[in-house]
Amino acid sequence: MTVRAVLFDVFGTLLDVQARATRADQLFPGNGARLSRLWREKQLEYMYLRSLAGRYVPFTQLNEDALVYACEALQLPLDAAARGLLMHEYTQLPAFADVVPTLRRLQHMDLTVGVLSNGDPGLLEDVMHSAQLDEFIDVVLSADQVRAFKTAPAVYALGPDTLGCPPAAILFVSAKSWDAACATWHGYTTCWVNRCGAPLERLGVSPHIIGRTLEVAADFVYRQQQLA
Amino acid sequence: MTVRAVLFDVFGTLLDVQARATRADQLFPGNGARLSRLWREKQLEYMYLRSLAGRYVPFTQLNEDALVYACEALQLPLDAAARGLLMHEYTQLPAFADVVPTLRRLQHMDLTVGVLSNGDPGLLEDVMHSAQLDEFIDVVLSADQVRAFKTAPAVYALGPDTLGCPPAAILFVSAKSWDAACATWHGYTTCWVNRCGAPLERLGVSPHIIGRTLEVAADFVYRQQQLA
Repeated sequence: MTVRAVLFDVFGTLLDVQARATRADQLFPGNGARLSRLWREKQLEYMYLRSLAGRYVPFTQLNEDALVYACEALQLPLDAAARGLLMHEYTQLPAFADVVPTLRRLQHMDLTVGVLSNGDPGLLEDVMHSAQLDEFIDVVLSADQVRAFKTAPAVYALGPDTLGCPPAAILFVSAKSWDAACATWHGYTTCWVNRCGAPLERLGVSPHIIGRTLEVAADFVYRQQQLA
Repeated sequence: MTVRAVLFDVFGTLLDVQARATRADQLFPGNGARLSRLWREKQLEYMYLRSLAGRYVPFTQLNEDALVYACEALQLPLDAAARGLLMHEYTQLPAFADVVPTLRRLQHMDLTVGVLSNGDPGLLEDVMHSAQLDEFIDVVLSADQVRAFKTAPAVYALGPDTLGCPPAAILFVSAKSWDAACATWHGYTTCWVNRCGAPLERLGVSPHIIGRTLEVAADFVYRQQQLA
């Protein structure tokens, strides 16, 4: 089916969350990578188990809970200033180098471009503005609209419901293998940007397109439009 | 409310999953801890995201998927023999030292004792038999009965539904802080056995009882029955 829209995941796909580890290492020398890793793990865990249990809280609150837990577990003293700095870092994440070139190419193709993220609307507004990506984005879809996180079907349903087209007509692009897999279950055309050469998650399903940079998404749409 | 039944989580609460790391280290010297950690992480991740996405597969299958992924990610060559050995290890996990004494005490109190686990029925039968715990257990509740994993409400609902009593009359005991937290959300009386001195998960809810060994669960029931 011809793709009429492209939806991107945000954190880790458009924006580089590694900046968090750098800042964490300034605050807690030698512990930045460990803190960043545990923070990320807890963030994902809290998203999953809160969604599953029907106990949603917005991402920003959950993200701070995960940070506090990670610092406690690693016995790192998190005062209000450090907490504020690390949380602020999350609103100022840089875009990966391939993001603007890809979005610019898509801008010249006839389709809707948007994001579909677990972030809450306030955070999404901040990060897209800070990374200067908002001019390329037609639609911002937040998990907050359905008070559940990916991989809840209600979140993926936001795409077809809002854009008014079948999921197969939407190319969903994520750097997380599990995110691309679940969108595939939901009927999307999917692209996994495997930025770090990870193995495919063992979920019994494969994304339709796999590449190392975001450019493969634009390549795919371009080829489809040439053939049409 | 007076507790009329005690339900235990199994893996990590009654049974010590550390045996897995020891076996993994025999097969992949120097990599046992890393493999065991990633295997466990993937296992949890696959449970959460499959439940959330409505793509249930039984725990044993998911556990093997997680093992295969973890070996791929760590570039450890997993042949059929190693895979078989590691999966078999999971059916032969030893009980923690405090388990039999606690179950023996509960046996002399007038209540139902059972397990409520994400494991599938075949695996639960194997592990309870192998650890010689089955003589103490009146009822085995498996997430497989509702084709979802904790922290899905349907799993916790198995307790009150099967035992025919309100959740507050059931003491749910888990070594996982998140498991105890979610059972608390579901109305259970809850006990977190904090075996390794971890911080409380930041989920905005606390278990009713916290202790370092399983004995606190029997202590609680004993005190309640003395007062009654």
